[in-house]
Amino acid sequence: MSDPLPPLSVLIFGFGAFGQMAARVLAPHLPVAICDPGPSALQMAQGLGLPVVPPEAARQYDIVLLAVPVPALAACLAGIAPHLAAGQLVVDVCSVKEGPAALMRRLLPEGVEILATHPMFGPQSMPAAVRGGRIVICPLRGRRWRQVAGFLRGVLGLRVILTTPEHHDRHAALTQGLTHLLARALEDFQPHPRIRTRSFDLLCEALDMVRGDAPEVYEAVTAANPHVAPLRDKLAQLLAAAAARA
Amino acid sequence: MSDPLPPLSVLIFGFGAFGQMAARVLAPHLPVAICDPGPSALQMAQGLGLPVVPPEAARQYDIVLLAVPVPALAACLAGIAPHLAAGQLVVDVCSVKEGPAALMRRLLPEGVEILATHPMFGPQSMPAAVRGGRIVICPLRGRRWRQVAGFLRGVLGLRVILTTPEHHDRHAALTQGLTHLLARALEDFQPHPRIRTRSFDLLCEALDMVRGDAPEVYEAVTAANPHVAPLRDKLAQLLAAAAARA
Repeated sequence: MSDPLPPLSVLIFGFGAFGQMAARVLAPHLPVAICDPGPSALQMAQGLGLPVVPPEAARQYDIVLLAVPVPALAACLAGIAPHLAAGQLVVDVCSVKEGPAALMRRLLPEGVEILATHPMFGPQSMPAAVRGGRIVICPLRGRRWRQVAGFLRGVLGLRVILTTPEHHDRHAALTQGLTHLLARALEDFQPHPRIRTRSFDLLCEALDMVRGDAPEVYEAVTAANPHVAPLRDKLAQLLAAAAARA
Repeated sequence: MSDPLPPLSVLIFGFGAFGQMAARVLAPHLPVAICDPGPSALQMAQGLGLPVVPPEAARQYDIVLLAVPVPALAACLAGIAPHLAAGQLVVDVCSVKEGPAALMRRLLPEGVEILATHPMFGPQSMPAAVRGGRIVICPLRGRRWRQVAGFLRGVLGLRVILTTPEHHDRHAALTQGLTHLLARALEDFQPHPRIRTRSFDLLCEALDMVRGDAPEVYEAVTAANPHVAPLRDKLAQLLAAAAARA
């Protein structure tokens, strides 16, 4: 009979909306600490009873979870790389995967393990509980990701989808990029009239879910995903062709 | 104390999916008869215990409900017009209103009252009950529509929206025409991948609701609504512009 593995300790780097959700979800199961220089982050972390540590403390944690938006990732990696040691696991949560994966491979020291992930839910779409939500994981270096995948599936009850960054971005271009583009485009047709069907109600509900996302999320899932532009062109052509037929 | 008004009798002209739903909804409250030459209609009407009558019997009913698709309306009006008398009320249920309103005004005898309507629900989107559903009504001739509106609101529990055919078609171009166009356009992006967000699930649910509609409904709410093409062009331009920015 072997002892169970000791719980992995996690340093959450960046304590914005997503980092806070991650802390609430993880803290009941694992030792969690926060790294974020902002004064409001300090106050909130203390409110949750979580320690706030400087980047220099990063090497004391098994996992470093980078809860920063895509445009901030390069600077974040450059800042934390000197404080990491071989065997640690770095995890990102960016909404696109090819660009962040390339950055992590380039900027993290050899021997540091890397798991790229995309939780397909967030503080807005799933504020209460994450159970049943989908998470895409793309193992890039090392083997510790298997333990993480088991935790996500077995403890958090997530549906784990194992794939590559390129495959993720191709699929997300449709399911995520196009949804955001439509939401933005249909804003120009506001206000929505009273004369409406149940299907239009649902359509609005779907688009409202992404409309509240931060501008950097919109940029990440549209401009930062190289597979979105061709889809966008195709949809514009299909609509124009339908217009020509009428 | 005055006696309550006697219940209005209704002849449902056309016993397709919508006519059948109307019969089920109305029969508990009003005397209902069916006019439809098809053998399956006869069988189904008998199954519901409803009489099937020829067009010549139309003048015996207070209300003639035309439950036929837009492309069949002109022929239907030409066929029934000789059998109508002043004081009767003709009601249509077409998904667009400007074209059908013009047809009814032109082809129905003077003295026949006219109420154009668009129930914003159907056998697919609301198979179980209509209570809470929206119905647009556009009174075109006569005053009996007030009694009908009271029945729809008070007895059936519908949300009645009183407006003009032109106003209806302008609004429906967005809430109905564009939904159908998007559903059709996004069919070209099938199959939908596993990597998807909750908002994309909702979007698909919304578009699936209209995808099963009959081809004549698609034609009615897109090509037969003159306000759809400009919206379609605008959306195509917005998407193309977004593509150019990326």
